[in-house]
Amino acid sequence: MAATAPSPSSSVKPVPLLKDELDIVIPTIRNLDFLEMWRPFFEQYHLIIVQDGDPSKTIKVPEGFDYELYNRNDINRILGPKASCISFKDSACRCFGYMVSKKKYIYTIDDDCFVAKDPSGKDINALEQHIKNLLSPSTPHFFNTLYDPYREGADFVRGYPFSLREGVPTAVSHGLWLNIPDYDAPTQLVKPHERNTRYVDAVLTIPKGTLFPMCGMNLAFDRELIGPAMYFGLMGDGQPIGRYDDMWAGWCMKVICDHLGLGVKTGLPYIWHSKASNPFVNLKKEYKGIFWQEDIIPFFQSATLPKECTSVQKCYIELSKQVKEKLGPIDPYFVKLADAMLTWIEAWDELNTPSDAISSKKANGALPAAAK
Amino acid sequence: MAATAPSPSSSVKPVPLLKDELDIVIPTIRNLDFLEMWRPFFEQYHLIIVQDGDPSKTIKVPEGFDYELYNRNDINRILGPKASCISFKDSACRCFGYMVSKKKYIYTIDDDCFVAKDPSGKDINALEQHIKNLLSPSTPHFFNTLYDPYREGADFVRGYPFSLREGVPTAVSHGLWLNIPDYDAPTQLVKPHERNTRYVDAVLTIPKGTLFPMCGMNLAFDRELIGPAMYFGLMGDGQPIGRYDDMWAGWCMKVICDHLGLGVKTGLPYIWHSKASNPFVNLKKEYKGIFWQEDIIPFFQSATLPKECTSVQKCYIELSKQVKEKLGPIDPYFVKLADAMLTWIEAWDELNTPSDAISSKKANGALPAAAK
Repeated sequence: MAATAPSPSSSVKPVPLLKDELDIVIPTIRNLDFLEMWRPFFEQYHLIIVQDGDPSKTIKVPEGFDYELYNRNDINRILGPKASCISFKDSACRCFGYMVSKKKYIYTIDDDCFVAKDPSGKDINALEQHIKNLLSPSTPHFFNTLYDPYREGADFVRGYPFSLREGVPTAVSHGLWLNIPDYDAPTQLVKPHERNTRYVDAVLTIPKGTLFPMCGMNLAFDRELIGPAMYFGLMGDGQPIGRYDDMWAGWCMKVICDHLGLGVKTGLPYIWHSKASNPFVNLKKEYKGIFWQEDIIPFFQSATLPKECTSVQKCYIELSKQVKEKLGPIDPYFVKLADAMLTWIEAWDELNTPSDAISSKKANGALPAAAK
Repeated sequence: MAATAPSPSSSVKPVPLLKDELDIVIPTIRNLDFLEMWRPFFEQYHLIIVQDGDPSKTIKVPEGFDYELYNRNDINRILGPKASCISFKDSACRCFGYMVSKKKYIYTIDDDCFVAKDPSGKDINALEQHIKNLLSPSTPHFFNTLYDPYREGADFVRGYPFSLREGVPTAVSHGLWLNIPDYDAPTQLVKPHERNTRYVDAVLTIPKGTLFPMCGMNLAFDRELIGPAMYFGLMGDGQPIGRYDDMWAGWCMKVICDHLGLGVKTGLPYIWHSKASNPFVNLKKEYKGIFWQEDIIPFFQSATLPKECTSVQKCYIELSKQVKEKLGPIDPYFVKLADAMLTWIEAWDELNTPSDAISSKKANGALPAAAK
């Protein structure tokens, strides 16, 4: 019997997991009323809000949240000419938040994502599940038919090599969406009424060598392990393409994780995706991507990184070279993107030097316009 | 309005899917009372029962089932000297049933597998789900985060290349187990009380290049597409190893499916696995496999087949050569197994000639001792 069992009437709140080691990054153009619903789960975490669009607009954040907010003027001031690598008028701008965070973990969520319920009707603590996913290993080298072997009530099945049961560190946790599924514009147009109602109670590792469409709506990652690969590309204002920001990051990230022996999980947790974006607008943003992805995906499927690439940065720089060489001939956009990938790494390294905590550059430069 | 809507009081039973194109293969050493529970789902299908152990024992099959039964004497008579490739005193003998079937599809199930219930409490028609899995394509070249895109209510998500949405033909459907999970002996010993209670409502394609532990308990496949690769190896009586029959078939089959562009699905349907086998007995059967799989799996992970291998048989013969060359040095068992792989293909081709239906050899030779 525990000598110091807590009183049932205790008003002490349980300390949230990784409270001081995780930032929540939210890209937005509107008031963040959606946070009210997330209050029980997010209130004790620090938020990094990346305001897209008109910087003179005021974004209201509900009382009681601890946050810093960056608008376009902040991004330009902090990064100077390197701000060119951060997209404008596209949720791709969220990756600026990854760069200025000082925490080990990031959770990023869209402002039209609400709290979902599990089949028993209980509110799903999405962040808690992401943290569980990130803190347990991945198994990219062999598929386990009972899904995540580290979950309670599960294990490795017969025939799973014992030498692989230690797994590898998990770099990314990709969560899913109930209600509005993350469909492309053509599928939205064809199936305007389709809703995702299937709750699949599984987390699984995406096997090594397999690419997947990473969605940025409900995504967590270990910034120390994979942060510099989480660049969301050049999208939106002034670019010929949109809605491929998270896809681009997912393809680059997966190739690098496979090379470095890191794991990527998908499945739980679900959020409730409340609002379908306009399929006509989406089609305009996507249509070049729909063509280009037929070349981009084979490119990433066959991309290999040399042994000398021993850090995420080195991998990413090498990948940018290959993008320029192999995808450049498709469209000048990829040359610009490859250059932006290099700029991103330079900016990342400037803001995240090893002596990070005492860097005067960061202390002076990275102060946001609005911090609470 | 349909002119010939059926009367609600009609007593006509719905025709079961693929009734005349699928055989159910059951390896057993005991009376098949478990079929009573499966009667509503299996009664209209043809069963192939492979009796293991003492051929003089009589296996009772419940009234009303349409079946043929083969004991060891039948196997020896039909295959002659080639019967050496069929295991004895091990459920690996089930693959004899695959060989003598004349149907396009096979479902194989163990006699300790009962009907499971879905979360709503309804009996699961496992066979129907397997047929759905086999009749819809697979997607081995890119992972779809909403799982099987061909299921009702699901589709390909944003970022999934359109050129890959046709999928590839599905060769294998691997079903799962509620209650007793398919653990190896060490895990059984460590977790004697663990039960699988998690119903994961998903079917997914095992990506190209990824191996998995295929369990033979609840398994369906397209015999025309992949039959000759479904050899369950040399196990049991006179062999140094057991309980790796399905694993062996799964590794060989997956390498060949990847080469030929065929798909393998896992997930639904569940059966209720009623009985844990004895972990001490299992350990004795498995312990060599536990060592050997550390070499076998890297072997299969790196195995490649030349372009000339354009049929399952050609692939399998090539694989047997590689087994002899690369795994032979580990233990003389693998040389024997490689030879048995060749014998299996010879026997398969003898019983499954293109002019199959009029082959006098088959008509004379393959008549089982007991047919109903």
